[in-house]
Amino acid sequence: MTDAPSERTRVKRLNKRAHYDEATVHAILDAMPVCHVGYVFKGSPVVTPTLQWREDDHLYWHGSSASRMLEACNGADVCVTVMILDGIVMARSAFNHSCNYRSVMVFGKAFMVTDPAEKEDRLKTFTNRLFPGRWDILRPVSAKELKATTMLGLSLEESSAKVRTGPPGDDEEDYGLPIWAGVLPVQLQVLLPTDDPRLLPGLAPPAHVTGFRIG
Amino acid sequence: MTDAPSERTRVKRLNKRAHYDEATVHAILDAMPVCHVGYVFKGSPVVTPTLQWREDDHLYWHGSSASRMLEACNGADVCVTVMILDGIVMARSAFNHSCNYRSVMVFGKAFMVTDPAEKEDRLKTFTNRLFPGRWDILRPVSAKELKATTMLGLSLEESSAKVRTGPPGDDEEDYGLPIWAGVLPVQLQVLLPTDDPRLLPGLAPPAHVTGFRIG
Repeated sequence: MTDAPSERTRVKRLNKRAHYDEATVHAILDAMPVCHVGYVFKGSPVVTPTLQWREDDHLYWHGSSASRMLEACNGADVCVTVMILDGIVMARSAFNHSCNYRSVMVFGKAFMVTDPAEKEDRLKTFTNRLFPGRWDILRPVSAKELKATTMLGLSLEESSAKVRTGPPGDDEEDYGLPIWAGVLPVQLQVLLPTDDPRLLPGLAPPAHVTGFRIG
Repeated sequence: MTDAPSERTRVKRLNKRAHYDEATVHAILDAMPVCHVGYVFKGSPVVTPTLQWREDDHLYWHGSSASRMLEACNGADVCVTVMILDGIVMARSAFNHSCNYRSVMVFGKAFMVTDPAEKEDRLKTFTNRLFPGRWDILRPVSAKELKATTMLGLSLEESSAKVRTGPPGDDEEDYGLPIWAGVLPVQLQVLLPTDDPRLLPGLAPPAHVTGFRIG
């Protein structure tokens, strides 16, 4: 654990779980595209789930140019949180139950990616990050689609990770109780792909589909 | 789809995916304890992952009384979002890629549950909702633990759900392209429980552990 990059990224609760190093933050962001974007809309907080991807020391997300979320985030303070649930931690008291998880919080002002060539390049990176090589086999993106896509970026400068692993931490006097305790691990499982009903005959899912992993 | 309970719960984007009926909202909240709580702290949005549970027309979450998240949420506007990823939707163009998911957003002012008996009763419900019958086999909760626990509640009055299912929606002219398209389903998988290293000999995980499901 190195020091927090800013006051608002400093993990206050259970700070033994805190990590501020780039490698930990990057690994969590790269493992899980699902994120929750927090922003303020008309004075109230809003949390919208979407997908993120990382390029170097920034993360990006995108959506329809008609999205009020993207409009409200542009140029504004946001918090993007990624959380991967790794297990339910079952203790001998209700109080000491917990979860194993990996999470990242990123704070900062979101900015819009406006250059069409940059947008296209980043969409290619996003697509190929999830599905290596898929971009080049897809029908090419059109200028109209790029225009209908709003893309936001956020520096990872103000980010922190929080990770819990391992068995429950029970009160010392509880370890002698005849109560089952341990960890129930959970993970995202990818099931067999289902063909689009209108798929042309003879097309099998490529390796970037059958090899997909998440979490 | 019935009508939205308030302006901020009205789903603007892709409103064919919107649901405002209680049954849909309740089913999603009951399937997934992981939630993301959005609140404003010193003028900036913050998104904290935690666990929620539902009782009738309210949801609840809890944590340490030292938590700045719980302190900042109490009496304040919050947004609690639950999202279950059900699949990656792969289209013939990058633009039409999507996700299948079930999500709920709840807006409102959080309130604190202060009565110790009510707190204990709700913790019992939370525990037994996840693990039927576990509360009664645990070491009983102490008055000190109840005091160290802050519990917040939120009415479900202002809530909305958004659900996507099914195959990709490609542009009509793209269906003839020789590109694999379909859905890659994902789900949370519960693995075999791992015993606490300090578990008393002869204790096997009970049915509420081996039968645990999430998502």
